[in-house]
Amino acid sequence: MRLEQELDGKDLASIGRELYRFAADLYPICRSITGNGIRQTLAMVTQRIPLQTFEVPSGTSVFDWTVPKEWNIRDAYIRIPGGKRVVDFQQSNLHVLNYSTPVHATIPLAELKSHLFSLPDHPDWIPYRTSYYQPNWGFCLSHHQLQALEDRDYEVCIDSTLEDGHLTYGECYLPGRSSDEVLISCHACHPSLANDNLSGLAVATFLAHLLSDRELRYSYRFLFIPGTIGAITWLSRNRESAERIRHGLVLTGIGDKGGFHYKKSRRGDTDIDRAAAHVLKHCGEASEVLDFSPYGYDERQYCSPGFNLAVGCLMRSVWGSFPEYHTSADNLDFIQPMQLARSLRVCAGIADVLENNQRYRNLSPYCEPQLGKRNLYRSTGGESIGTEISARLWVLNFSDGENSLLDIAEHSGLPFTTISNAAESLCQGGLLSAIADSGPSEAAPDSSSHREGSASCRTAQAAAKLVGPEN
Amino acid sequence: MRLEQELDGKDLASIGRELYRFAADLYPICRSITGNGIRQTLAMVTQRIPLQTFEVPSGTSVFDWTVPKEWNIRDAYIRIPGGKRVVDFQQSNLHVLNYSTPVHATIPLAELKSHLFSLPDHPDWIPYRTSYYQPNWGFCLSHHQLQALEDRDYEVCIDSTLEDGHLTYGECYLPGRSSDEVLISCHACHPSLANDNLSGLAVATFLAHLLSDRELRYSYRFLFIPGTIGAITWLSRNRESAERIRHGLVLTGIGDKGGFHYKKSRRGDTDIDRAAAHVLKHCGEASEVLDFSPYGYDERQYCSPGFNLAVGCLMRSVWGSFPEYHTSADNLDFIQPMQLARSLRVCAGIADVLENNQRYRNLSPYCEPQLGKRNLYRSTGGESIGTEISARLWVLNFSDGENSLLDIAEHSGLPFTTISNAAESLCQGGLLSAIADSGPSEAAPDSSSHREGSASCRTAQAAAKLVGPEN
Amino acid sequence: MRLEQELDGKDLASIGRELYRFAADLYPICRSITGNGIRQTLAMVTQRIPLQTFEVPSGTSVFDWTVPKEWNIRDAYIRIPGGKRVVDFQQSNLHVLNYSTPVHATIPLAELKSHLFSLPDHPDWIPYRTSYYQPNWGFCLSHHQLQALEDRDYEVCIDSTLEDGHLTYGECYLPGRSSDEVLISCHACHPSLANDNLSGLAVATFLAHLLSDRELRYSYRFLFIPGTIGAITWLSRNRESAERIRHGLVLTGIGDKGGFHYKKSRRGDTDIDRAAAHVLKHCGEASEVLDFSPYGYDERQYCSPGFNLAVGCLMRSVWGSFPEYHTSADNLDFIQPMQLARSLRVCAGIADVLENNQRYRNLSPYCEPQLGKRNLYRSTGGESIGTEISARLWVLNFSDGENSLLDIAEHSGLPFTTISNAAESLCQGGLLSAIADSGPSEAAPDSSSHREGSASCRTAQAAAKLVGPEN
Repeated sequence: MRLEQELDGKDLASIGRELYRFAADLYPICRSITGNGIRQTLAMVTQRIPLQTFEVPSGTSVFDWTVPKEWNIRDAYIRIPGGKRVVDFQQSNLHVLNYSTPVHATIPLAELKSHLFSLPDHPDWIPYRTSYYQPNWGFCLSHHQLQALEDRDYEVCIDSTLEDGHLTYGECYLPGRSSDEVLISCHACHPSLANDNLSGLAVATFLAHLLSDRELRYSYRFLFIPGTIGAITWLSRNRESAERIRHGLVLTGIGDKGGFHYKKSRRGDTDIDRAAAHVLKHCGEASEVLDFSPYGYDERQYCSPGFNLAVGCLMRSVWGSFPEYHTSADNLDFIQPMQLARSLRVCAGIADVLENNQRYRNLSPYCEPQLGKRNLYRSTGGESIGTEISARLWVLNFSDGENSLLDIAEHSGLPFTTISNAAESLCQGGLLSAIADSGPSEAAPDSSSHREGSASCRTAQAAAKLVGPEN
Repeated sequence: MRLEQELDGKDLASIGRELYRFAADLYPICRSITGNGIRQTLAMVTQRIPLQTFEVPSGTSVFDWTVPKEWNIRDAYIRIPGGKRVVDFQQSNLHVLNYSTPVHATIPLAELKSHLFSLPDHPDWIPYRTSYYQPNWGFCLSHHQLQALEDRDYEVCIDSTLEDGHLTYGECYLPGRSSDEVLISCHACHPSLANDNLSGLAVATFLAHLLSDRELRYSYRFLFIPGTIGAITWLSRNRESAERIRHGLVLTGIGDKGGFHYKKSRRGDTDIDRAAAHVLKHCGEASEVLDFSPYGYDERQYCSPGFNLAVGCLMRSVWGSFPEYHTSADNLDFIQPMQLARSLRVCAGIADVLENNQRYRNLSPYCEPQLGKRNLYRSTGGESIGTEISARLWVLNFSDGENSLLDIAEHSGLPFTTISNAAESLCQGGLLSAIADSGPSEAAPDSSSHREGSASCRTAQAAAKLVGPEN
Repeated sequence: MRLEQELDGKDLASIGRELYRFAADLYPICRSITGNGIRQTLAMVTQRIPLQTFEVPSGTSVFDWTVPKEWNIRDAYIRIPGGKRVVDFQQSNLHVLNYSTPVHATIPLAELKSHLFSLPDHPDWIPYRTSYYQPNWGFCLSHHQLQALEDRDYEVCIDSTLEDGHLTYGECYLPGRSSDEVLISCHACHPSLANDNLSGLAVATFLAHLLSDRELRYSYRFLFIPGTIGAITWLSRNRESAERIRHGLVLTGIGDKGGFHYKKSRRGDTDIDRAAAHVLKHCGEASEVLDFSPYGYDERQYCSPGFNLAVGCLMRSVWGSFPEYHTSADNLDFIQPMQLARSLRVCAGIADVLENNQRYRNLSPYCEPQLGKRNLYRSTGGESIGTEISARLWVLNFSDGENSLLDIAEHSGLPFTTISNAAESLCQGGLLSAIADSGPSEAAPDSSSHREGSASCRTAQAAAKLVGPEN
């Protein structure tokens, strides 16, 4: 499987436009950590990939937490009694403090103000604020709106319900040869915010689609969940599955124009950390690898010390580091089709590494084997060698049973794909053999019918280009 | 115990003036590695802290060395026979080569010159020179003085005694819950030199005063000793005590206007090395951490390979790196009250780390616990979190039984105090428990009456400020 | 043994001129991987050092390779039929594609062109090209020559033979106290190319001469071999010897005006890697240490995973990084006498480290010993100490049985020679003793007659300079 190469053979711009369209379709929905918004969102994901939806009743204990009541909202506004709406939920679902309890009253401005949230530094933007676990009501509005309010009575109305119901999340499971899992997790609880996290939701959906109906080394589990409480709920209900997670990524904020940031797992030196760092280094865009810290997205839960999973977080601009974060300015203008597509391509590259990273053994370890007689070298001595031949020398020299292809890619500075292709050519040439995979566990017998096609030696088209003798 | 916080609540400038006054009172005394000068100095320390003084007879074997004869001096001069003094010990005790044997003779300038020491590059300054182990006499003088000497006979007189006597040193021992010790060592043998080492002597005295009458985790031993031979003598007579030294600091040259330098112990990665580096990083002044090298102060002895103790050396400007070093220009103008006070504050901060650094266990390690319901989180979701909450997340995530608070402070980049406060809040909230201290040994039963007040959970005033729910 | 000091006592410029003259004498010979050119070359080496020559028959299997037929050449040219030579082997042996099969024919330019090699970017230079393992014939010529060829028929003649014969290589073995070996390898197969590799050949020859007739700790084996196939052949026939190689250097391209480059062994942290890096750091020239990579010279074979020997490669400018590489511009103007001499000096310094690096034990490990009473310290206290005394303190402090002198040199930043001299002084003073050498194996009894003169304590002339007491 070579997803990245496959994407490079397609029109990435067109894939970007499709990703963007999906995000745009999801944008207007008023999501929260529970309720019909997230249900509607998951329904739209289900149109693209096979998604199983779960409903967990309010009041369910999940570790130190409790699944909250379900919140739904129809309307909300502030208006001059009998007059026009000055703040209107119908214009932006950000106007309501998410999880606001219902209210309908007429109160003076002074009293109202303790329920209002604005951003003096960005007076045109509406902040995104929530109060999930402390019953409260409130409105978020632009600072200009706030300043324009006259000192008078206002009618406030939040037509919401906060009642026993369910927390809803979705899973897409793609079985592989091994029951060991790769987790891809994204939160699906934010209302009209594009980068945080419709970008992650869209890329995760498309990545799952790309991986569907393939022969996979690992099994993949995609989670579309409400932030924090969703990850806690899932982990609480799936402790056995969690033990099978070998590698994982939280995808979030990957549609903006910024370069990539990969935040490492708590363990910091796992294969996912190295794979992500490697792919970013060679992706052609600016990127930075960040150490783990316990604040952020749902890696907070996956990397809590009791689980300590190998789960990192892939972002473009880092949350909180750009002013649009958690405001109405994180809208559809803030994300770009090509940025979404390139994020998908990086995810594909990471999956390629996870799928193809294994150890080989040089079958001719005493001195270099004569590549020339196998048409794996250049024809005239005295000239320099190219990247393909260099990659073969690297793979031969370091395939001593200890080093994986990712180790070799890191040592050599060459892209994983080049190293992986070299390994294929050398397998073809009878110089290399794959070492039985001590990595992922094999799946149960009933799913082992996939195992015939070994990943160790495939036809190397690239090798056909090379001719000639050796020195 | 939080010495640093306590100092921050006081008038640091006034503490600095007091430190400076103490140094100034000690300045005129003519000290050497033995004799009445060091006795008089220790007597002045005893007025401030409980000091036990030891007298070791001349001739005592101490490892490869022998305690030398005791040296005392009343007067010394060079004068034109029957005329005025051209070099006069009464004007500066630096004028005499320290440990000069007695002499009274009239000799021509040519012969005298082989007994004179000056600094051509700094013609106004008197050098500080010694000849402890090779019997010799001499005078140190400014190069201008030297050049002004006419080619004639001079009467030279050194009214000193070098006779069997004693080497004198002082110890201040402050018992703690554990018999494991923290060593603070400073040399007290230099005559009128302010930074080297009245600064160290003053700060050590005030630090001992600060630690007195407290409940301490460790026992503290302060040594006021002559350089080299004093440390060798103490180690030779106290091999059992030396084995109890868990952490140690040599304090020297910490009154000048330069930034801090911490020279690491020979082992290089001990708790004292990390504590000092951490406190300096957050102290608000320029600082540099230096690798161990075998030349320097008494860490040379504590870190000799047979002992290899975890003892570093805290300085401001490094010996030999500034021209005033070992000259009359290292006088009371060369040290500053506020620099002494800030050095004391750094020492206090290091002691705080040693006293409070321990490991805790997160009692709720699966996912994050819900801090909001314990009033340990911010009230409105969507906003960023502050340092206090961030510190709590760090402590929770890394308190897996492996990491100490200092480990966590280093990982997080937050000051130890912030991390330590977070641990207190979380203990209060029932989320964290201290791991039984495998660090310092407990003291013998007779001193265990101090053990009641466990350090693991104290009232966290800081926690009271925090309100609200969580996301 | 102190080769470097010995060289410093001689006229390095004169040594450089002698090295250069040797390279110049070798320059005109048309070498290849087999044949009379390399035989003639080895014969000239034999005039300087005791060299044993080996002949391996064509067709011999050497690991994955086969020793090729032997190639010899008398003449080669392209000429206008019946007219003058336009390309003439007699003017430069680079004009013929090395290992060209014989040909004598008259062919049109169009057909000829597929057998011509030139360098459009350097139109005055002749490239060096080979075709050892794919039968072919060809000419290398300057691009100006190529462009001047008219569109007509040409008579081409290569008067060569490619027949069963032998591969020839030379070995110079210098026995030491231990049968453990230091390998010095250089390729001797390139025709008129000065830096690559007459420079390596000359320096290796002179280094062997320098080491001859000495009492050596290690045995030294110098190989003068054809590149790639020669190393493979030697390793194939000498697997037992290969197991005794403890340290090794490939010497190549060390006569040009560039700074030094040392390419580390595959293992990357061996003594030869550290010794080379250390000597280069202190050699007074620019230098850079490069990580191992599997392309390069014969370290490719020595560091193949089956052998994984501690063999690095010492160069000045790195192959392929300068335009003259593998062209006629790598001529006698491209190398310089003094550069050859300084390269020899670096090799000598590396041999000094290998010969003298061992571990010592401080016999007085509790506190510093009193150096003053042994005349190993400065006379007057208060002054700074010099490098010699500093080195003694380093050796004493770190000679705890764990650290070798090279470890101490690295820690201290002082040159190995200074540290080694300090160890000698301290041995003389009775303060240090050598630890029985667990490094190189002792040679078989019959060669143990050399063992009397222990390397652990020699007369330290340097120590005589030092006088005086101590503080």
